[in-house]
Amino acid sequence: MKNLKLAICQMRVSDDKNTNLAVAADMIQKSSDLGAEMVVLPEVFNSPYRASLFPAYAETWPGPSTAFLSRSAARHGLNLVGGSIIERDNNNLYNTCFIFGPTGDLLGRHRKMHLFDVDITDGISFRESDTLSPGEEVTVIKTDALCFGVMICFDIRFPELARRCVLDGAQFLVVPAAFNTVTGPAHWEILMRARAADNQCYVIAASPARNPDSSYQAWGHSLVVDPWGRIIAEAGIDEEIIIADINLDLVSQVRSELPLLRQRRPELYNL
Amino acid sequence: MKNLKLAICQMRVSDDKNTNLAVAADMIQKSSDLGAEMVVLPEVFNSPYRASLFPAYAETWPGPSTAFLSRSAARHGLNLVGGSIIERDNNNLYNTCFIFGPTGDLLGRHRKMHLFDVDITDGISFRESDTLSPGEEVTVIKTDALCFGVMICFDIRFPELARRCVLDGAQFLVVPAAFNTVTGPAHWEILMRARAADNQCYVIAASPARNPDSSYQAWGHSLVVDPWGRIIAEAGIDEEIIIADINLDLVSQVRSELPLLRQRRPELYNL
Repeated sequence: MKNLKLAICQMRVSDDKNTNLAVAADMIQKSSDLGAEMVVLPEVFNSPYRASLFPAYAETWPGPSTAFLSRSAARHGLNLVGGSIIERDNNNLYNTCFIFGPTGDLLGRHRKMHLFDVDITDGISFRESDTLSPGEEVTVIKTDALCFGVMICFDIRFPELARRCVLDGAQFLVVPAAFNTVTGPAHWEILMRARAADNQCYVIAASPARNPDSSYQAWGHSLVVDPWGRIIAEAGIDEEIIIADINLDLVSQVRSELPLLRQRRPELYNL
Repeated sequence: MKNLKLAICQMRVSDDKNTNLAVAADMIQKSSDLGAEMVVLPEVFNSPYRASLFPAYAETWPGPSTAFLSRSAARHGLNLVGGSIIERDNNNLYNTCFIFGPTGDLLGRHRKMHLFDVDITDGISFRESDTLSPGEEVTVIKTDALCFGVMICFDIRFPELARRCVLDGAQFLVVPAAFNTVTGPAHWEILMRARAADNQCYVIAASPARNPDSSYQAWGHSLVVDPWGRIIAEAGIDEEIIIADINLDLVSQVRSELPLLRQRRPELYNL
């Protein structure tokens, strides 16, 4: 496979889990109708993004939301990067992305490694670590045809993680994320584009749509960046599906023209 | 010192070394008149940027161009980041930045660590490594009042190096650089802004002005980015001095509000 048709479902997420699953089902169906071979949902697609509510919405694996994702992937025969859900594992909660293949089999799971703990003057305060635990593993999914990294939102702020995924073979990075109206205009686009340009890979960033009723105002602007750092698809702030063609030959071409990954000097960085 | 007034001299570089030194002298004088406490010159400010000409323009240390820089720093009592010159050291040539303090003393030297070897279809081909050798050391300059990293042009493409400088204490990164009309519009701004936002430091990027007579068309657009990733000063493409106030308190403030450097998880990146 040299090309991959990809869809991002920029869902408007509500407080009602069943409604969220129904919206996701509808948007996955539409994405499939548009020819998508891979569909990406946003961060915490089934629940409101509010730390105090995470325990009430959490699910174990397997559970209703992951069963829904597996069924959806199998029904449409596509790869489904299931945004994220709040996952309960014994006494811990994680912000976890489950990834399913075209037969509904679990391809992998990424637990957000860097939790969103910020306190910006006149901006936004949020402490995921009040209720969540961080993941302990880098996630690179390998199938017969594809190799991609999965990161969740705040993970993208750490260039080391994107680099690690790419050194492990990732041709693209999939990033379910929910930046907000403070960090979004400041950093969303430059971080996604710089990760793509530095690592000469596609970056696929899936945000929820803006929801005026929510306590957390997601930035929206889901986008796909190519290995030269160009935005090739971008959503607005409302509920929307965006489609992009991922050309894996372009990854090789850019890496050959500007051989950054070979020109690294890791022996001198001492990181 | 909590604030630092900084000037970038976006010089138009010609083929004549004496003319280049005279232009630099004039722009440093004007920067001083504007109150600058630190002045930054562009990459290869004394010679044309053409690999085949590097041997002819190279100088040992000490030599006429570094003596000029030292005298200029002392005359105006300011810190001078001397862009770069082609430095001859025995049988090797380096693309080297010499940095002088207010008494004309050498504060340090950065030899470009990543050489510009690219071959972009329908774009640009250049091979610095045909004539130059790479530097082998990360450069962080520490004075009583300041701590800053120095990188040259292609070095900025490697996020590992910016990170290393900041982990070693850099409050800002000074980057003499000469992107071109292919890589400039694609990457100049996003790389400088992303390094600043990731590392929560100022980034000061000094380009030569565009010179229609040159075989190498520099991008221009010298700029200063603050620790939140905002451009606070930017040049056009012609010869120009830009001035910015570097507020070191802002570095601490942004790092406190969004504690990225503490939230890194180096034990998991395995770089």
